[in-house]
Amino acid sequence: MNRDFIAHTERYRERVHAQIAGYLAKDYPHSLYEPMRYALQAGGKLLRPLLAIVSCEAVGGRLEDVLDAAAALELVHNFSLVHDDIMDNDDLRRGRETVYKKWNANVGILAGDAILVTAYEALSEITTQYLPQILREFNQGILEVCEGQALDMEFEERQDVTPDEYFYMIDRKTAKLFSLSCVSGAILGGGSEADIRALRTFGMKLGRAFQVQDDLLDLLADQETLGKDIGSDIQADKKTYLVIFTKAHADDRQLQQLDSVRQKKKLGTDDIRQVIDIMQTVGAIDAAQKEVQSALSDARAALNRLENNEPRRLLAGLLDMLEHRTS
Amino acid sequence: MNRDFIAHTERYRERVHAQIAGYLAKDYPHSLYEPMRYALQAGGKLLRPLLAIVSCEAVGGRLEDVLDAAAALELVHNFSLVHDDIMDNDDLRRGRETVYKKWNANVGILAGDAILVTAYEALSEITTQYLPQILREFNQGILEVCEGQALDMEFEERQDVTPDEYFYMIDRKTAKLFSLSCVSGAILGGGSEADIRALRTFGMKLGRAFQVQDDLLDLLADQETLGKDIGSDIQADKKTYLVIFTKAHADDRQLQQLDSVRQKKKLGTDDIRQVIDIMQTVGAIDAAQKEVQSALSDARAALNRLENNEPRRLLAGLLDMLEHRTS
Repeated sequence: MNRDFIAHTERYRERVHAQIAGYLAKDYPHSLYEPMRYALQAGGKLLRPLLAIVSCEAVGGRLEDVLDAAAALELVHNFSLVHDDIMDNDDLRRGRETVYKKWNANVGILAGDAILVTAYEALSEITTQYLPQILREFNQGILEVCEGQALDMEFEERQDVTPDEYFYMIDRKTAKLFSLSCVSGAILGGGSEADIRALRTFGMKLGRAFQVQDDLLDLLADQETLGKDIGSDIQADKKTYLVIFTKAHADDRQLQQLDSVRQKKKLGTDDIRQVIDIMQTVGAIDAAQKEVQSALSDARAALNRLENNEPRRLLAGLLDMLEHRTS
Repeated sequence: MNRDFIAHTERYRERVHAQIAGYLAKDYPHSLYEPMRYALQAGGKLLRPLLAIVSCEAVGGRLEDVLDAAAALELVHNFSLVHDDIMDNDDLRRGRETVYKKWNANVGILAGDAILVTAYEALSEITTQYLPQILREFNQGILEVCEGQALDMEFEERQDVTPDEYFYMIDRKTAKLFSLSCVSGAILGGGSEADIRALRTFGMKLGRAFQVQDDLLDLLADQETLGKDIGSDIQADKKTYLVIFTKAHADDRQLQQLDSVRQKKKLGTDDIRQVIDIMQTVGAIDAAQKEVQSALSDARAALNRLENNEPRRLLAGLLDMLEHRTS
């Protein structure tokens, strides 16, 4: 089951890549288009375009109905990565230098802007009656992604973020774009209101499961497996679900220990082990796993409101894959 | 004649302000919406929205036809200002701290992004058959503004920029948005293909005249009158028409003098006077004034292709006003 989504969508990847490449074929000024292409060539999973395509098929639509929006989704995703990497000072992305690191922040700002506008260019190719609705969904979605990033930055300055605030933030920063992908597919495939609603929920829950899973993997996975420093979130004082749950449930002594680790310039493996110990003691890791399960279960329930067909089974398979991923 | 445009459009200003304020009424997260509102409250001239409205009227349309696009144009303009101020390290804008200076670069990046998306939100309110065409015009226009900014930054690293390259750059960075404003008005007012073409040219020529005029005023105007340091462009090694023309026509000795001034950390009034002397000797100031006149003349010719009505006279009056402005 798990490989089905990958296998089935393999043939769509090339189409999405070609579609995006078509929008980035210009080259003057080189200082703008080269970093744009670089950002898009990073070899992402194309998860958002593929979600849009399979959602479209799930409601009876075809690839051609959704291809422009699919390209737009990947462009929006990369716009936010390019700008977030500047704001978060992230030097590496998918094993390569980030745009702002390879060039500079100015190039990153401008390339990100132009990638966003290119996403709207892709949308403007939609010639059906769905264009106004799709445009409104994208506007609302991208604005929420910005809101999520603003909250994420606000939270870095605060030590009292609650789990509810965390979910409010990641629902915008991460889940919204998954949801927008599914909704775009449902609308452009001619889905009913009920189909659109079901796929909207599916996308939100999938996104939430994905993000909490990510927080878990970031903490637990090997440096090699994930390509990111273990505990980098702790060091950066990032507000992951694990960190926030732990702070909300730690006693005074544990809070003091966490605080002293957080304030160190550089963490050793002992420091990281100590933090993980506290997380396990207060039940943060269990709680995170339960949140992932709960979101996956809601996502499955949403899927069950769709007609039972092959694309729906692929989306269910994607949830299984996410449930068992280790990197 | 000159005050007519101001007087006639006075009653539109409030409508445009109210329209924009409606889009920025949200407040959570505060760290996103406060800087967005701050950027839009800077009290600009609303030149672009007003151009769109009067262009719409010139082809027989009404305020209501173009109000969403007018708001979008001011939002796009401010998106580019907020991001450009980060890239150009500009601390002041219309006598107030820039967004990135008042908060920080991250806030500026994100607020700019969200202002751009809000512009598209405004466009998505267009319910007529013109939406797809307007969307394509905006996408192309904003992308060209990004291209212009990229070229402007490229040119800062070069000492051999030609006058042709300069015009290519400012046609994108500055003139395109004026042109987009006029074109939006023409389309949404139901103008003919010929009307749209005439107003596209009018906007481009107006924008070019405006920018070269700006370069001239920046050099010649009083510190009080313009609110900017005289010669700041020289100090920043900015590629204005005057600087580029001067370099293209200076002899070796003059080039050496310019180079030694450029490399000083801080310029005195003597340095600035020396540069202005060289500019006058090689004829740069005359050439700039001629370019302004030539662009204004082309803009007037374009206007003459429209029906002769009151809005057309207002647009002509705007050219007169621009011709005689001193700040």
